[in-house]
Amino acid sequence: MFELTSYIKQKNQIIDASLEKMLRDSNSSKTLFKAMKYSLMAGGKRIRPVLCLAACEAVGGVPEDALTAACALEMIHTYSLIHDDLPAMDDDELRRGKPTCHIAFDEATAVLAGDALLTLAFEVLSSEYFGDGNQAAQWLQVIRLISVAAGYQGMIQGQMLDIASEGLKLSADDLETMHRLKTGALIEASLACGALLGGADGRQKALLSNYACKIGLAFQVADDILNVEGNPELMGKAVGSDSQRKKSTYPSVLGVQAAREFSKKLVQEALQALETFDKQADPLRGIAKYIIERKR
Amino acid sequence: MFELTSYIKQKNQIIDASLEKMLRDSNSSKTLFKAMKYSLMAGGKRIRPVLCLAACEAVGGVPEDALTAACALEMIHTYSLIHDDLPAMDDDELRRGKPTCHIAFDEATAVLAGDALLTLAFEVLSSEYFGDGNQAAQWLQVIRLISVAAGYQGMIQGQMLDIASEGLKLSADDLETMHRLKTGALIEASLACGALLGGADGRQKALLSNYACKIGLAFQVADDILNVEGNPELMGKAVGSDSQRKKSTYPSVLGVQAAREFSKKLVQEALQALETFDKQADPLRGIAKYIIERKR
Repeated sequence: MFELTSYIKQKNQIIDASLEKMLRDSNSSKTLFKAMKYSLMAGGKRIRPVLCLAACEAVGGVPEDALTAACALEMIHTYSLIHDDLPAMDDDELRRGKPTCHIAFDEATAVLAGDALLTLAFEVLSSEYFGDGNQAAQWLQVIRLISVAAGYQGMIQGQMLDIASEGLKLSADDLETMHRLKTGALIEASLACGALLGGADGRQKALLSNYACKIGLAFQVADDILNVEGNPELMGKAVGSDSQRKKSTYPSVLGVQAAREFSKKLVQEALQALETFDKQADPLRGIAKYIIERKR
Repeated sequence: MFELTSYIKQKNQIIDASLEKMLRDSNSSKTLFKAMKYSLMAGGKRIRPVLCLAACEAVGGVPEDALTAACALEMIHTYSLIHDDLPAMDDDELRRGKPTCHIAFDEATAVLAGDALLTLAFEVLSSEYFGDGNQAAQWLQVIRLISVAAGYQGMIQGQMLDIASEGLKLSADDLETMHRLKTGALIEASLACGALLGGADGRQKALLSNYACKIGLAFQVADDILNVEGNPELMGKAVGSDSQRKKSTYPSVLGVQAAREFSKKLVQEALQALETFDKQADPLRGIAKYIIERKR
Protein backbone atom coordinates (compact mmCIF):
# COMPACT_ATOMS: atom_id res chain seq x y z
CA MET A 1 0.00 0.00 0.00
CA PHE A 2 1.50 3.31 -1.11
CA GLU A 3 1.91 5.98 1.58
CA LEU A 4 2.08 9.48 0.07
CA THR A 5 2.98 11.36 3.25
CA SER A 6 6.12 9.33 3.90
CA TYR A 7 6.99 9.39 0.19
CA ILE A 8 6.84 13.18 0.07
CA LYS A 9 8.71 13.49 3.36
CA GLN A 10 11.50 11.25 2.12
CA LYS A 11 11.77 13.07 -1.22
CA ASN A 12 11.73 16.46 0.49
CA GLN A 13 14.69 15.41 2.63
CA ILE A 14 16.65 14.45 -0.48
CA ILE A 15 15.65 17.67 -2.27
CA ASP A 16 16.44 19.91 0.71
CA ALA A 17 19.82 18.25 1.25
CA SER A 18 20.64 18.72 -2.41
CA LEU A 19 19.53 22.37 -2.42
CA GLU A 20 21.61 23.04 0.72
CA LYS A 21 24.63 21.53 -1.03
CA MET A 22 24.08 23.63 -4.15
CA LEU A 23 23.88 26.75 -1.99
CA ARG A 24 27.13 26.03 -0.19
CA ASP A 25 29.27 29.10 -0.53
CA SER A 26 32.55 30.26 0.88
CA ASN A 27 31.03 33.70 1.44
CA SER A 28 27.78 32.66 3.04
CA SER A 29 27.79 35.75 5.24
CA LYS A 30 26.85 37.87 2.24
CA THR A 31 23.40 39.41 2.28
CA LEU A 32 22.59 38.27 -1.26
CA PHE A 33 23.36 34.70 -0.38
CA LYS A 34 21.36 34.89 2.86
CA ALA A 35 18.33 36.20 0.99
CA MET A 36 18.54 33.42 -1.61
CA LYS A 37 18.77 30.80 1.10
CA TYR A 38 16.05 32.44 3.20
CA SER A 39 13.49 32.08 0.41
CA LEU A 40 14.69 28.77 -0.99
CA MET A 41 14.66 27.03 2.40
CA ALA A 42 11.46 28.66 3.70
CA GLY A 43 9.54 25.40 3.85
CA GLY A 44 7.83 25.26 0.49
CA LYS A 45 5.79 22.21 -0.43
CA ARG A 46 8.36 21.21 -3.10
CA ILE A 47 5.54 20.13 -5.43
CA ARG A 48 7.52 20.67 -8.65
CA PRO A 49 10.68 18.80 -7.64
CA VAL A 50 8.64 15.94 -6.15
CA LEU A 51 6.67 15.69 -9.42
CA CYS A 52 9.94 15.66 -11.35
CA LEU A 53 11.36 12.79 -9.28
CA ALA A 54 8.05 10.90 -9.33
CA ALA A 55 7.83 11.19 -13.14
CA CYS A 56 11.35 9.81 -13.43
CA GLU A 57 10.36 6.83 -11.26
CA ALA A 58 7.05 6.33 -13.10
CA VAL A 59 8.89 5.58 -16.34
CA GLY A 60 11.32 3.22 -14.62
CA GLY A 61 14.17 5.66 -14.04
CA VAL A 62 16.35 6.23 -10.97
CA PRO A 63 15.10 9.37 -9.19
CA GLU A 64 18.67 10.48 -8.40
CA ASP A 65 19.19 11.08 -12.13
CA ALA A 66 16.53 13.80 -12.04
CA LEU A 67 17.58 15.38 -8.74
CA THR A 68 19.51 18.29 -10.25
CA ALA A 69 16.61 19.17 -12.54
CA ALA A 70 14.23 18.90 -9.57
CA CYS A 71 16.33 21.39 -7.59
CA ALA A 72 16.61 23.78 -10.54
CA LEU A 73 12.82 23.76 -10.90
CA GLU A 74 12.42 24.66 -7.22
CA MET A 75 14.91 27.51 -7.60
CA ILE A 76 12.92 28.90 -10.51
CA HIS A 77 9.64 28.51 -8.63
CA THR A 78 11.15 30.31 -5.62
CA TYR A 79 12.53 33.18 -7.72
CA SER A 80 9.08 33.65 -9.28
CA LEU A 81 7.50 33.88 -5.81
CA ILE A 82 10.09 36.43 -4.63
CA HIS A 83 9.42 38.67 -7.63
CA ASP A 84 5.63 38.13 -7.52
CA ASP A 85 5.60 39.28 -3.89
CA LEU A 86 7.35 42.60 -4.68
CA PRO A 87 5.48 45.86 -3.97
CA ALA A 88 5.23 46.59 -7.74
CA MET A 89 3.51 43.21 -8.24
CA ASP A 90 1.32 41.44 -5.68
CA ASP A 91 2.78 43.40 -2.74
CA ASP A 92 2.61 40.50 -0.30
CA GLU A 93 4.22 40.70 3.13
CA LEU A 94 3.73 37.08 4.17
CA ARG A 95 4.64 33.85 2.42
CA ARG A 96 4.57 30.40 3.99
CA GLY A 97 4.01 32.06 7.36
CA LYS A 98 7.18 34.13 7.16
CA PRO A 99 7.92 37.69 6.00
CA THR A 100 8.47 37.79 2.24
CA CYS A 101 12.00 38.36 0.94
CA HIS A 102 11.65 42.11 0.41
CA ILE A 103 10.26 42.51 3.94
CA ALA A 104 12.91 40.33 5.61
CA PHE A 105 15.66 42.06 3.59
CA ASP A 106 14.85 44.97 1.26
CA GLU A 107 13.43 45.45 -2.19
CA ALA A 108 16.73 45.69 -4.08
CA THR A 109 18.00 42.54 -2.37
CA ALA A 110 14.77 40.71 -3.20
CA VAL A 111 15.00 41.61 -6.91
CA LEU A 112 18.62 40.46 -7.00
CA ALA A 113 18.04 37.30 -4.93
CA GLY A 114 15.33 36.33 -7.41
CA ASP A 115 17.62 37.03 -10.35
CA ALA A 116 20.36 35.02 -8.67
CA LEU A 117 18.15 31.96 -8.04
CA LEU A 118 16.97 32.00 -11.66
CA THR A 119 20.58 32.17 -12.84
CA LEU A 120 21.72 29.50 -10.36
CA ALA A 121 19.11 27.11 -11.78
CA PHE A 122 20.89 27.23 -15.14
CA GLU A 123 24.28 27.00 -13.46
CA VAL A 124 23.42 23.72 -11.75
CA LEU A 125 21.75 22.36 -14.91
CA SER A 126 24.89 23.05 -16.94
CA SER A 127 27.18 21.50 -14.33
CA GLU A 128 25.85 18.00 -14.86
CA TYR A 129 28.13 17.16 -17.72
CA PHE A 130 30.98 14.75 -17.18
CA GLY A 131 32.25 13.94 -20.64
CA ASP A 132 29.46 11.91 -22.23
CA GLY A 133 28.08 13.64 -25.33
CA ASN A 134 24.69 11.91 -25.16
CA GLN A 135 24.34 12.98 -21.56
CA ALA A 136 25.23 16.54 -22.57
CA ALA A 137 22.50 16.51 -25.23
CA GLN A 138 19.99 15.37 -22.64
CA TRP A 139 20.86 18.19 -20.25
CA LEU A 140 20.60 20.74 -23.07
CA GLN A 141 17.09 19.45 -23.69
CA VAL A 142 16.27 19.84 -20.00
CA ILE A 143 17.54 23.43 -20.06
CA ARG A 144 15.42 24.11 -23.12
CA LEU A 145 12.28 22.60 -21.58
CA ILE A 146 12.71 24.63 -18.40
CA SER A 147 13.68 27.94 -20.04
CA VAL A 148 10.75 27.82 -22.47
CA ALA A 149 8.30 26.97 -19.66
CA ALA A 150 9.66 29.67 -17.35
CA GLY A 151 9.99 32.34 -20.03
CA TYR A 152 8.01 34.97 -21.87
CA GLN A 153 5.78 32.44 -23.57
CA GLY A 154 5.16 30.56 -20.34
CA MET A 155 5.31 31.45 -16.64
CA ILE A 156 6.32 35.10 -17.02
CA GLN A 157 3.58 35.77 -19.55
CA GLY A 158 1.17 34.15 -17.07
CA GLN A 159 2.25 36.59 -14.37
CA MET A 160 1.74 39.50 -16.79
CA LEU A 161 -1.80 38.26 -17.49
CA ASP A 162 -2.42 37.85 -13.77
CA ILE A 163 -1.42 41.44 -13.03
CA ALA A 164 -3.32 42.81 -16.04
CA SER A 165 -6.49 40.96 -15.06
CA GLU A 166 -6.72 42.31 -11.52
CA GLY A 167 -10.10 43.96 -11.12
CA LEU A 168 -11.41 42.46 -14.38
CA LYS A 169 -14.05 39.75 -14.63
CA LEU A 170 -12.42 36.92 -16.57
CA SER A 171 -14.24 34.14 -18.37
CA ALA A 172 -13.48 30.56 -17.33
CA ASP A 173 -11.46 30.17 -20.54
CA ASP A 174 -9.32 33.26 -19.90
CA LEU A 175 -8.77 32.10 -16.35
CA GLU A 176 -7.60 28.71 -17.64
CA THR A 177 -5.22 30.33 -20.16
CA MET A 178 -3.71 32.47 -17.44
CA HIS A 179 -3.16 29.55 -15.07
CA ARG A 180 -1.85 27.22 -17.77
CA LEU A 181 0.89 29.79 -18.30
CA LYS A 182 1.46 31.03 -14.78
CA THR A 183 1.62 27.70 -12.94
CA GLY A 184 0.85 25.01 -15.53
CA ALA A 185 3.87 25.55 -17.76
CA LEU A 186 6.45 24.93 -15.01
CA ILE A 187 4.51 21.95 -13.64
CA GLU A 188 4.41 20.45 -17.13
CA ALA A 189 8.16 21.05 -17.46
CA SER A 190 8.70 19.30 -14.10
CA LEU A 191 7.01 16.15 -15.37
CA ALA A 192 8.66 16.42 -18.80
CA CYS A 193 12.17 16.72 -17.31
CA GLY A 194 11.62 13.80 -14.97
CA ALA A 195 10.28 11.69 -17.83
CA LEU A 196 13.17 12.63 -20.12
CA LEU A 197 15.84 11.92 -17.51
CA GLY A 198 14.11 8.66 -16.59
CA GLY A 199 14.35 7.49 -20.20
CA ALA A 200 10.64 7.73 -21.13
CA ASP A 201 9.48 6.70 -24.60
CA GLY A 202 7.23 8.93 -26.73
CA ARG A 203 3.99 7.37 -25.52
CA GLN A 204 4.95 7.77 -21.85
CA LYS A 205 5.99 11.39 -22.43
CA ALA A 206 2.62 12.18 -24.06
CA LEU A 207 0.65 10.55 -21.24
CA LEU A 208 2.65 12.34 -18.55
CA SER A 209 2.19 15.62 -20.40
CA ASN A 210 -1.56 15.04 -20.28
CA TYR A 211 -1.37 14.16 -16.56
CA ALA A 212 0.66 17.35 -15.94
CA CYS A 213 -1.85 19.52 -17.77
CA LYS A 214 -4.72 18.22 -15.66
CA ILE A 215 -3.07 18.35 -12.23
CA GLY A 216 -1.51 21.74 -12.95
CA LEU A 217 -4.94 23.23 -13.43
CA ALA A 218 -6.51 21.16 -10.61
CA PHE A 219 -3.84 22.48 -8.29
CA GLN A 220 -4.76 26.06 -9.15
CA VAL A 221 -8.49 25.47 -8.75
CA ALA A 222 -7.84 23.90 -5.35
CA ASP A 223 -5.62 26.85 -4.42
CA ASP A 224 -8.40 29.27 -5.31
CA ILE A 225 -10.86 27.31 -3.17
CA LEU A 226 -8.42 27.30 -0.24
CA ASN A 227 -8.09 31.07 -0.60
CA VAL A 228 -11.85 31.29 0.02
CA GLU A 229 -12.33 28.76 2.77
CA GLY A 230 -8.90 27.61 3.93
CA ASN A 231 -7.50 27.86 7.43
CA PRO A 232 -4.99 30.75 7.52
CA GLU A 233 -3.01 29.12 10.33
CA LEU A 234 -2.51 25.90 8.40
CA MET A 235 -1.69 27.80 5.22
CA GLY A 236 0.71 30.33 6.72
CA LYS A 237 -0.86 33.13 4.73
CA ALA A 238 -3.95 35.30 4.71
CA VAL A 239 -7.21 33.96 3.36
CA GLY A 240 -9.61 35.99 1.24
CA SER A 241 -6.84 38.02 -0.41
CA ASP A 242 -8.02 37.11 -3.93
CA SER A 243 -11.47 38.51 -3.28
CA GLN A 244 -10.03 41.64 -1.61
CA ARG A 245 -7.95 42.27 -4.74
CA LYS A 246 -10.96 41.54 -6.94
CA LYS A 247 -9.04 38.74 -8.63
CA SER A 248 -11.00 36.40 -10.85
CA THR A 249 -10.79 32.92 -9.36
CA TYR A 250 -12.50 29.61 -10.05
CA PRO A 251 -14.86 30.04 -7.09
CA SER A 252 -15.72 33.58 -8.23
CA VAL A 253 -16.25 32.57 -11.86
CA LEU A 254 -17.86 29.15 -11.40
CA GLY A 255 -19.04 29.22 -7.77
CA VAL A 256 -17.37 27.20 -4.99
CA GLN A 257 -19.37 24.02 -5.57
CA ALA A 258 -18.82 23.92 -9.34
CA ALA A 259 -15.14 24.75 -8.82
CA ARG A 260 -14.85 21.77 -6.47
CA GLU A 261 -16.52 19.51 -9.06
CA PHE A 262 -14.20 20.86 -11.76
CA SER A 263 -11.07 20.07 -9.72
CA LYS A 264 -12.37 16.54 -9.03
CA LYS A 265 -13.00 15.99 -12.74
CA LEU A 266 -9.47 17.18 -13.61
CA VAL A 267 -7.96 14.79 -11.06
CA GLN A 268 -10.01 11.91 -12.49
CA GLU A 269 -8.68 12.73 -15.95
CA ALA A 270 -5.14 12.90 -14.61
CA LEU A 271 -5.56 9.44 -13.08
CA GLN A 272 -6.92 8.10 -16.37
CA ALA A 273 -3.77 9.31 -18.15
CA LEU A 274 -1.79 7.02 -15.84
CA GLU A 275 -3.95 3.92 -16.45
CA THR A 276 -1.33 2.03 -18.47
CA PHE A 277 1.45 2.74 -15.94
CA ASP A 278 2.36 0.15 -13.29
CA LYS A 279 2.69 0.72 -9.55
CA GLN A 280 5.81 2.82 -10.05
CA ALA A 281 3.36 5.59 -10.96
CA ASP A 282 1.63 5.30 -7.57
CA PRO A 283 3.37 8.46 -6.27
CA LEU A 284 1.94 10.42 -9.22
CA ARG A 285 -1.49 8.93 -8.50
CA GLY A 286 -1.17 9.85 -4.84
CA ILE A 287 -0.15 13.42 -5.64
CA ALA A 288 -3.15 13.86 -7.95
CA LYS A 289 -5.54 12.80 -5.16
CA TYR A 290 -3.70 14.88 -2.58
CA ILE A 291 -4.29 18.05 -4.61
CA ILE A 292 -8.01 18.10 -3.84
CA GLU A 293 -7.66 16.80 -0.29
CA ARG A 294 -4.94 19.14 0.98
CA LYS A 295 -5.62 21.79 3.61
CA ARG A 296 -2.71 24.09 2.75
CA MET B 1 44.77 48.66 -42.26
CA PHE B 2 42.07 47.58 -39.77
CA GLU B 3 39.06 49.90 -39.48
CA LEU B 4 37.30 49.47 -36.12
CA THR B 5 34.27 51.65 -36.86
CA SER B 6 33.23 49.66 -39.90
CA TYR B 7 34.04 46.37 -38.13
CA ILE B 8 31.77 47.27 -35.20
CA LYS B 9 29.07 48.56 -37.54
CA GLN B 10 29.08 45.35 -39.56
CA LYS B 11 29.03 43.15 -36.44
CA ASN B 12 26.26 45.23 -34.90
CA GLN B 13 24.12 44.67 -37.99
CA ILE B 14 24.60 40.91 -37.70
CA ILE B 15 23.92 40.96 -33.96
CA ASP B 16 20.82 43.17 -34.28
CA ALA B 17 19.40 41.03 -37.10
CA SER B 18 19.95 37.91 -35.01
CA LEU B 19 18.38 39.46 -31.89
CA GLU B 20 15.36 40.59 -33.95
CA LYS B 21 14.97 37.04 -35.23
CA MET B 22 15.20 35.56 -31.73
CA LEU B 23 12.52 37.99 -30.57
CA ARG B 24 10.11 37.09 -33.34
CA ASP B 25 6.86 36.15 -31.70
CA SER B 26 3.39 35.36 -32.89
CA ASN B 27 2.01 37.53 -30.10
CA SER B 28 4.22 40.55 -30.51
CA SER B 29 1.42 42.88 -29.47
CA LYS B 30 1.84 41.74 -25.88
CA THR B 31 3.14 44.34 -23.45
CA LEU B 32 5.77 41.98 -22.00
CA PHE B 33 7.19 41.33 -25.43
CA LYS B 34 7.16 45.03 -26.32
CA ALA B 35 9.07 45.88 -23.15
CA MET B 36 11.69 43.19 -23.85
CA LYS B 37 12.18 44.46 -27.37
CA TYR B 38 12.16 48.11 -26.29
CA SER B 39 15.14 47.60 -24.01
CA LEU B 40 17.00 45.05 -26.13
CA MET B 41 16.83 47.16 -29.30
CA ALA B 42 17.45 50.53 -27.60
CA GLY B 43 20.74 51.13 -29.35
CA GLY B 44 23.26 49.69 -26.92
CA LYS B 45 26.91 49.62 -27.88
CA ARG B 46 26.87 45.79 -28.13
CA ILE B 47 30.32 45.64 -26.52
CA ARG B 48 29.87 42.14 -25.08
CA PRO B 49 28.57 40.44 -28.23
CA VAL B 50 31.19 42.17 -30.39
CA LEU B 51 33.92 40.97 -27.99
CA CYS B 52 32.49 37.46 -28.19
CA LEU B 53 32.58 37.42 -31.99
CA ALA B 54 36.02 39.07 -32.10
CA ALA B 55 37.43 36.47 -29.67
CA CYS B 56 36.06 33.70 -31.87
CA GLU B 57 37.80 35.25 -34.89
CA ALA B 58 41.03 35.90 -32.99
CA VAL B 59 41.53 32.16 -32.42
CA GLY B 60 40.74 31.35 -36.06
CA GLY B 61 37.05 30.50 -35.65
CA VAL B 62 34.07 31.50 -37.78
CA PRO B 63 32.21 34.33 -35.99
CA GLU B 64 28.81 32.89 -36.97
CA ASP B 65 29.53 29.95 -34.64
CA ALA B 66 29.54 32.33 -31.68
CA LEU B 67 26.56 34.46 -32.75
CA THR B 68 24.00 32.78 -30.50
CA ALA B 69 26.26 33.13 -27.48
CA ALA B 70 26.88 36.77 -28.43
CA CYS B 71 23.13 37.46 -28.50
CA ALA B 72 22.55 35.65 -25.20
CA LEU B 73 25.25 37.81 -23.57
CA GLU B 74 23.52 40.98 -24.81
CA MET B 75 20.17 39.76 -23.45
CA ILE B 76 21.75 39.20 -20.04
CA HIS B 77 23.47 42.58 -20.12
CA THR B 78 20.16 44.25 -21.06
CA TYR B 79 18.22 42.48 -18.30
CA SER B 80 20.81 43.64 -15.77
CA LEU B 81 20.39 47.24 -16.93
CA ILE B 82 16.59 47.05 -16.70
CA HIS B 83 16.77 45.76 -13.11
CA ASP B 84 19.60 48.16 -12.13
CA ASP B 85 17.49 51.10 -13.30
CA LEU B 86 14.51 50.16 -11.08
CA PRO B 87 13.41 52.60 -8.36
CA ALA B 88 14.54 50.18 -5.64
CA MET B 89 18.03 50.12 -7.18
CA ASP B 90 19.68 53.01 -9.06
CA ASP B 91 16.33 54.70 -9.82
CA ASP B 92 17.35 55.93 -13.27
CA GLU B 93 14.83 57.46 -15.66
CA LEU B 94 17.07 57.73 -18.73
CA ARG B 95 19.19 55.11 -20.46
CA ARG B 96 20.83 55.53 -23.86
CA GLY B 97 18.85 58.74 -24.32
CA LYS B 98 15.48 57.04 -23.87
CA PRO B 99 13.18 56.54 -20.88
CA THR B 100 14.18 53.45 -18.92
CA CYS B 101 11.95 50.39 -19.14
CA HIS B 102 10.00 51.05 -15.91
CA ILE B 103 9.33 54.63 -17.08
CA ALA B 104 8.30 53.66 -20.62
CA PHE B 105 6.13 50.81 -19.26
CA ASP B 106 5.71 50.29 -15.53
CA GLU B 107 7.67 48.77 -12.69
CA ALA B 108 6.03 45.34 -12.74
CA THR B 109 6.54 45.06 -16.50
CA ALA B 110 10.18 46.09 -16.14
CA VAL B 111 10.87 43.44 -13.50
CA LEU B 112 9.22 40.78 -15.68
CA ALA B 113 10.83 41.96 -18.94
CA GLY B 114 14.22 41.64 -17.23
CA ASP B 115 13.34 38.18 -15.94
CA ALA B 116 12.16 37.21 -19.42
CA LEU B 117 15.34 38.39 -21.16
CA LEU B 118 17.49 36.48 -18.66
CA THR B 119 15.42 33.35 -19.27
CA LEU B 120 15.42 33.84 -23.05
CA ALA B 121 19.22 33.91 -23.02
CA PHE B 122 19.24 30.33 -21.74
CA GLU B 123 16.47 29.34 -24.13
CA VAL B 124 18.50 30.42 -27.17
CA LEU B 125 21.68 28.85 -25.78
CA SER B 126 19.92 25.52 -25.33
CA SER B 127 18.36 25.64 -28.81
CA GLU B 128 21.69 25.28 -30.58
CA TYR B 129 21.78 21.52 -30.47
CA PHE B 130 21.25 19.56 -33.65
CA GLY B 131 22.21 16.03 -32.79
CA ASP B 132 25.96 16.17 -32.33
CA GLY B 133 27.02 15.14 -28.81
CA ASN B 134 30.30 17.05 -28.88
CA GLN B 135 28.47 20.17 -29.95
CA ALA B 136 26.01 19.67 -27.11
CA ALA B 137 28.87 19.43 -24.62
CA GLN B 138 30.29 22.69 -25.93
CA TRP B 139 26.99 24.54 -25.52
CA LEU B 140 26.63 23.20 -21.98
CA GLN B 141 30.04 24.69 -21.22
CA VAL B 142 28.92 28.01 -22.69
CA ILE B 143 25.80 27.97 -20.49
CA ARG B 144 27.96 27.22 -17.48
CA LEU B 145 30.43 30.02 -18.25
CA ILE B 146 27.63 32.55 -18.69
CA SER B 147 25.49 31.47 -15.72
CA VAL B 148 28.45 31.52 -13.33
CA ALA B 149 29.57 34.95 -14.59
CA ALA B 150 26.06 36.42 -14.41
CA GLY B 151 25.15 34.84 -11.08
CA TYR B 152 25.49 35.35 -7.35
CA GLN B 153 29.26 34.95 -7.40
CA GLY B 154 29.62 37.29 -10.38
CA MET B 155 27.56 40.11 -11.84
CA ILE B 156 24.69 40.02 -9.31
CA GLN B 157 27.08 40.06 -6.36
CA GLY B 158 28.77 43.05 -8.02
CA GLN B 159 25.46 44.90 -8.17
CA MET B 160 24.86 44.11 -4.46
CA LEU B 161 28.29 45.56 -3.62
CA ASP B 162 27.55 48.61 -5.77
CA ILE B 163 24.31 49.33 -3.93
CA ALA B 164 25.85 48.64 -0.51
CA SER B 165 28.77 50.96 -1.21
CA GLU B 166 26.70 54.02 -2.11
CA GLY B 167 27.76 56.85 0.18
CA LEU B 168 30.84 54.95 1.40
CA LYS B 169 34.41 55.82 0.55
CA LEU B 170 35.88 52.71 -1.08
CA SER B 171 39.56 51.91 -1.43
CA ALA B 172 40.93 51.37 -4.94
CA ASP B 173 41.07 47.62 -4.18
CA ASP B 174 37.43 47.45 -3.09
CA LEU B 175 36.42 49.43 -6.16
CA GLU B 176 38.29 46.97 -8.36
CA THR B 177 36.65 43.97 -6.68
CA MET B 178 33.22 45.51 -7.20
CA HIS B 179 33.82 46.23 -10.89
CA ARG B 180 35.48 42.88 -11.59
CA LEU B 181 32.20 41.33 -10.44
CA LYS B 182 29.66 43.84 -11.73
CA THR B 183 30.99 44.31 -15.27
CA GLY B 184 34.22 42.30 -15.50
CA ALA B 185 32.71 38.85 -15.01
CA LEU B 186 30.33 39.08 -18.00
CA ILE B 187 33.00 40.66 -20.21
CA GLU B 188 35.35 37.82 -19.32
CA ALA B 189 32.60 35.32 -20.13
CA SER B 190 32.05 37.05 -23.50
CA LEU B 191 35.68 36.47 -24.47
CA ALA B 192 35.73 32.96 -22.99
CA CYS B 193 32.62 31.89 -24.92
CA GLY B 194 33.95 33.30 -28.17
CA ALA B 195 37.27 31.56 -27.62
CA LEU B 196 35.63 28.26 -26.74
CA LEU B 197 33.30 28.32 -29.74
CA GLY B 198 36.18 29.34 -32.01
CA GLY B 199 38.14 26.28 -30.95
CA ALA B 200 40.81 28.01 -28.83
CA ASP B 201 43.57 25.97 -27.19
CA GLY B 202 44.47 26.33 -23.51
CA ARG B 203 47.17 28.92 -24.09
CA GLN B 204 44.87 31.11 -26.21
CA LYS B 205 42.11 30.84 -23.61
CA ALA B 206 44.47 31.98 -20.85
CA LEU B 207 45.75 34.95 -22.87
CA LEU B 208 42.24 36.06 -23.81
CA SER B 209 41.16 35.74 -20.20
CA ASN B 210 44.00 38.07 -19.25
CA TYR B 211 43.00 40.49 -22.05
CA ALA B 212 39.38 40.38 -20.82
CA CYS B 213 40.39 41.13 -17.25
CA LYS B 214 42.33 44.23 -18.29
CA ILE B 215 39.83 45.70 -20.74
CA GLY B 216 36.88 44.95 -18.43
CA LEU B 217 38.42 47.13 -15.77
CA ALA B 218 39.70 49.74 -18.26
CA PHE B 219 36.19 50.05 -19.63
CA GLN B 220 34.84 50.82 -16.15
CA VAL B 221 37.56 53.34 -15.37
CA ALA B 222 36.82 55.09 -18.70
CA ASP B 223 33.10 55.02 -17.89
CA ASP B 224 33.75 56.68 -14.54
CA ILE B 225 35.82 59.38 -16.25
CA LEU B 226 33.06 59.97 -18.82
CA ASN B 227 30.59 60.36 -15.96
CA VAL B 228 32.72 63.24 -14.69
CA GLU B 229 33.60 65.00 -17.92
CA GLY B 230 31.62 63.40 -20.74
CA ASN B 231 29.17 65.16 -23.05
CA PRO B 232 25.63 64.29 -21.91
CA GLU B 233 24.26 64.72 -25.45
CA LEU B 234 26.72 62.24 -26.94
CA MET B 235 26.18 59.83 -24.06
CA GLY B 236 22.40 59.99 -23.97
CA LYS B 237 22.40 60.16 -20.18
CA ALA B 238 23.08 62.58 -17.40
CA VAL B 239 26.64 63.36 -16.38
CA GLY B 240 27.77 63.81 -12.79
CA SER B 241 25.26 61.29 -11.42
CA ASP B 242 27.98 59.25 -9.68
CA SER B 243 29.13 62.24 -7.70
CA GLN B 244 25.53 63.27 -6.88
CA ARG B 245 24.96 59.79 -5.46
CA LYS B 246 28.27 59.91 -3.62
CA LYS B 247 29.42 56.80 -5.46
CA SER B 248 33.06 55.89 -5.20
CA THR B 249 34.58 56.05 -8.68
CA TYR B 250 38.08 55.89 -10.07
CA PRO B 251 38.26 59.68 -10.50
CA SER B 252 37.00 60.19 -6.93
CA VAL B 253 39.40 57.62 -5.46
CA LEU B 254 42.50 58.22 -7.60
CA GLY B 255 41.84 61.66 -9.13
CA VAL B 256 40.94 62.18 -12.81
CA GLN B 257 44.52 62.31 -14.08
CA ALA B 258 45.66 59.16 -12.24
CA ALA B 259 42.46 57.37 -13.35
CA ARG B 260 43.27 58.24 -16.94
CA GLU B 261 46.82 56.88 -16.54
CA PHE B 262 45.45 53.73 -14.93
CA SER B 263 43.08 53.05 -17.82
CA LYS B 264 45.94 53.58 -20.32
CA LYS B 265 48.14 51.13 -18.39
CA LEU B 266 45.36 48.51 -18.40
CA VAL B 267 44.87 48.87 -22.14
CA GLN B 268 48.64 48.47 -22.69
CA GLU B 269 48.57 45.27 -20.66
CA ALA B 270 45.57 44.04 -22.65
CA LEU B 271 47.47 44.64 -25.89
CA GLN B 272 50.49 42.78 -24.50
CA ALA B 273 48.31 39.75 -23.82
CA LEU B 274 47.55 39.67 -27.56
CA GLU B 275 51.20 39.88 -28.66
CA THR B 276 51.44 36.31 -29.94
CA PHE B 277 48.16 36.55 -31.89
CA ASP B 278 48.19 37.33 -35.62
CA LYS B 279 46.17 40.00 -37.43
CA GLN B 280 42.93 38.12 -36.78
CA ALA B 281 43.15 39.65 -33.31
CA ASP B 282 43.18 43.18 -34.74
CA PRO B 283 39.52 43.74 -33.82
CA LEU B 284 40.36 42.93 -30.19
CA ARG B 285 43.32 45.30 -30.36
CA GLY B 286 41.11 48.00 -31.85
CA ILE B 287 38.46 47.57 -29.15
CA ALA B 288 41.08 47.90 -26.42
CA LYS B 289 42.28 51.21 -27.84
CA TYR B 290 38.73 52.41 -28.43
CA ILE B 291 37.90 52.03 -24.75
CA ILE B 292 40.05 54.96 -23.72
CA GLU B 293 39.28 57.06 -26.80
CA ARG B 294 35.50 56.81 -26.84
CA LYS B 295 33.24 59.75 -26.07
CA ARG B 296 30.18 57.79 -24.99
